[in-house]
Amino acid sequence: MINKYSKEALLEGDSNFRRDFVNSLTGFKSLNLIGTRNEKGASNLAPFSQVFHIGASPPLVGILFRPHTVERHTLSNILDTGFFTLNHVHESFYKKAHQTAARYSGSEFEAVGLEEVILDGFYAPFVEISPLKIACSLADHQTIQLNQTVLVIGAIEAVWVDELAVGADGFVDLEKIGTITVTGLDAYHKTQKLARLSYPKPNSEVKEI
Amino acid sequence: MINKYSKEALLEGDSNFRRDFVNSLTGFKSLNLIGTRNEKGASNLAPFSQVFHIGASPPLVGILFRPHTVERHTLSNILDTGFFTLNHVHESFYKKAHQTAARYSGSEFEAVGLEEVILDGFYAPFVEISPLKIACSLADHQTIQLNQTVLVIGAIEAVWVDELAVGADGFVDLEKIGTITVTGLDAYHKTQKLARLSYPKPNSEVKEI
Repeated sequence: MINKYSKEALLEGDSNFRRDFVNSLTGFKSLNLIGTRNEKGASNLAPFSQVFHIGASPPLVGILFRPHTVERHTLSNILDTGFFTLNHVHESFYKKAHQTAARYSGSEFEAVGLEEVILDGFYAPFVEISPLKIACSLADHQTIQLNQTVLVIGAIEAVWVDELAVGADGFVDLEKIGTITVTGLDAYHKTQKLARLSYPKPNSEVKEI
Repeated sequence: MINKYSKEALLEGDSNFRRDFVNSLTGFKSLNLIGTRNEKGASNLAPFSQVFHIGASPPLVGILFRPHTVERHTLSNILDTGFFTLNHVHESFYKKAHQTAARYSGSEFEAVGLEEVILDGFYAPFVEISPLKIACSLADHQTIQLNQTVLVIGAIEAVWVDELAVGADGFVDLEKIGTITVTGLDAYHKTQKLARLSYPKPNSEVKEI
């Protein structure tokens, strides 16, 4: 039975229901562990589903931060030091990834048992077993006036991934490396490819490639 | 064999490789068909993988638009009229959804054979068979100075979805309604749930819920 959920009903209803419901609406989300250090060198790790593509030339990613949540250490570390890492999450450690969101006083790497690694002397730490790792530097940030969330824009400095997952055309086969996806606040999913489709043109049939 | 792809190598290399590669990096993406009309009433439909959650109170979504691409009709229609719809894509019509990105001169609904529907007199059209439909009004927009992409922020006015897919806690089970996900520019995937996990706390084990 199709139900209509109006803005008015959502705003008048329970705030927990609204939070879970609205977080589900846009669809499947990326899942990345963001690694940072503070200015004293203490490392931090937190899961994010609000990382998205901004552009390829130059390579840019966006992250949307809520202003007053457990993620604030990540945001302040990025703004203070200018560096962070993105680390894809595999089925084998998604429960540890989820657990990094708990309010630990020390390093989440140690608390949940994920090994941290430094690559090429980059300031921010990576998750050693992550199958796709990205080194990013802070390029810009701005506040969304409507709700005070903060959009951080990162410049991609380097990517580490198994070259067997990278096609000649540049496509990275995320299923081959086991990257998973998330819905709502707490649901994790693996995927099964339907197809890649050819570039769409008006008078030609879509083909699987 | 893990390979390092540096920013310098990407910028010096082939632009098509860079576009496909960088579009793959953030992970799995949402897939929505955006329905609009121009000021004369002509309808338009286009696929987007750059729709993301901005906030629940009030319910807001963001869409990132490239400035000079096939999506420009969607952007200009939103800015001109103030309304758009988001429509989740199911396996049964993902090839038609992909094909709406072709440069048609008339309505993509007609061109690819997706029926359009008006709900509650909302100005922008919906995709009749879409399992989750969202009516949005333009709340704000701003240009990302680093690459001139345009961030549109939409206020969620109403959502239509099967109430059997909506949990008592507000979580929407996207697998139950068949929503699919996308990677890179052209790869489509269905999903298989691993688990929902309990709210993470420092001294307690993560549980499946």
